[in-house]
Amino acid sequence: MHEFELIRQVFREADYARPGGAVVHSIGDDCALLETAASEQLAISTDSLLEGVHFPPGADGFLLGQRALAVAVSDLAAMGARPLAFTLALSLPQADADWLRELSRGLQTMARQAAIPLVGGDTTKGPLNLGITVMGTVPAGQALLRSGARPGQQLWVSGPLGGAAAALQVLQAGSSSYPGLLAAYWTPKPQLELGQWLRGKGGAALDISDGLLADAGHMAAESGVQLVIEQERVPVHPEAQALSAHQTLEWALCGGDDYQLVFSLPGQHAAALQKHFSQARCIGRVCVGQGVLLVDGQGQSVDLAHKGYQHF
Amino acid sequence: MHEFELIRQVFREADYARPGGAVVHSIGDDCALLETAASEQLAISTDSLLEGVHFPPGADGFLLGQRALAVAVSDLAAMGARPLAFTLALSLPQADADWLRELSRGLQTMARQAAIPLVGGDTTKGPLNLGITVMGTVPAGQALLRSGARPGQQLWVSGPLGGAAAALQVLQAGSSSYPGLLAAYWTPKPQLELGQWLRGKGGAALDISDGLLADAGHMAAESGVQLVIEQERVPVHPEAQALSAHQTLEWALCGGDDYQLVFSLPGQHAAALQKHFSQARCIGRVCVGQGVLLVDGQGQSVDLAHKGYQHF
Repeated sequence: MHEFELIRQVFREADYARPGGAVVHSIGDDCALLETAASEQLAISTDSLLEGVHFPPGADGFLLGQRALAVAVSDLAAMGARPLAFTLALSLPQADADWLRELSRGLQTMARQAAIPLVGGDTTKGPLNLGITVMGTVPAGQALLRSGARPGQQLWVSGPLGGAAAALQVLQAGSSSYPGLLAAYWTPKPQLELGQWLRGKGGAALDISDGLLADAGHMAAESGVQLVIEQERVPVHPEAQALSAHQTLEWALCGGDDYQLVFSLPGQHAAALQKHFSQARCIGRVCVGQGVLLVDGQGQSVDLAHKGYQHF
Repeated sequence: MHEFELIRQVFREADYARPGGAVVHSIGDDCALLETAASEQLAISTDSLLEGVHFPPGADGFLLGQRALAVAVSDLAAMGARPLAFTLALSLPQADADWLRELSRGLQTMARQAAIPLVGGDTTKGPLNLGITVMGTVPAGQALLRSGARPGQQLWVSGPLGGAAAALQVLQAGSSSYPGLLAAYWTPKPQLELGQWLRGKGGAALDISDGLLADAGHMAAESGVQLVIEQERVPVHPEAQALSAHQTLEWALCGGDDYQLVFSLPGQHAAALQKHFSQARCIGRVCVGQGVLLVDGQGQSVDLAHKGYQHF
């Protein structure tokens, strides 16, 4: 296991793993130590990314490092939390130093973007698996919950959808064209600023990992409301449209992995939202009832089963 | 993936995953939410347990659940931290409901013993792997670090060693005799009370996962001291002695997995320690110098290389 000791060294010496700020003690003891403030609550989420399940086999280390951490941090964004620290439990089949350095460079890129230091790790020999636990802070009582949607609120998404689902088709074809789609898949941007802006405004939020319709369904169920989505208002990724116009709406509604936020908001905040977050789009409204209702341009209900949409 | 949805339900509904105490919001949203106190620091550690690497293939779910959480919580004990919450990222090859319920029952048993609720989880299909992140709290500035040993202090262990290493031989032979050894392996007791008692007394601590000599080596290196261990004072597990008298000392010195604490302590606290923790044993002292020196009953240095001890 000497080779694995060298790998641990890569992370221990990484400059995104240095103590500072809230990190009193980083990697190297039985636990890391962090400072917290009494007026804040701690937000925690854990994710595993397995090769062949959550990302294609043979993934580039740099891209995978960025994506793995972005996906995890997105859960903090969805709660309106500010990133505090993350831990990485890595298993990998062999100690390939070059690939590892690329993975670490990818983690570092996203760690800097999101201002989230690495504070603990564990590396073992096994099938490639990145287990990431993220911690963040949120002022007490102000976290954005899935259960916060109220009838009368508007329903929004933070930006264009369908890019990551379209990218999977490009990846499966082994192509490197459509760089905007590949970026949507490999380097999603956790919507941290938006999540924090939404705090205290009375709405619900979650990040779209399973697909807009499925995740809106979670919000509807947890909030005890109906969400009406106007399909013509759902923003789609322009390169997805270029790749396959007739598949784009299905990708946008049912494809996951975009990590945009879907959120509800009282209408009086709409102008300020649009001013600060120009990519956000209002896609519908919160009603009394249950489930998700998709409507077309004439306001007619779209029969989802008939469309044969996957994952719904 | 419907079967995996059912599994997630097992954990979501487990009674060790209920909100309460510091847990404001548990499983079911993008993040869990915990209360913290400003006078306390947060201690965090992450561990992966892979089948065939960290535990034998075909392990009993109940025992595995207990062991996995005990091993993780032991890192909190070693810092003197009080358990706050844990997350579980589980990958498993198939959704075997009976085995899963046993795993959950094992986790619950240890979660109750250690008073640590489950606050987040992620379940995916893949090779059996339990990724556990534990969080605890410790009064600011009072965590027990590996770097805290000072010349003149005594060196102690919290209880008998070698039981878990001996148990591996019993397990490899497929035997179920020596129940005390099997218990030492499957249900180590995180030394939480002892860790908290040691706070503020000026010493160093860590939990013995790699073996006494290796872990004492970590303490010596981080503290910049020499640790002198008298081999005749090292407490050994009585059933290990019964299994193989001539291997017992090697198991106790070099076998890992016992999760006792090794710690240093100013001599004035020795009587109070012994009164409260009757299994603890003084095994040596902290000196000026570096590394670990093992001495025999005549005070002569033992040549570790000559002994052919593994893992050192």
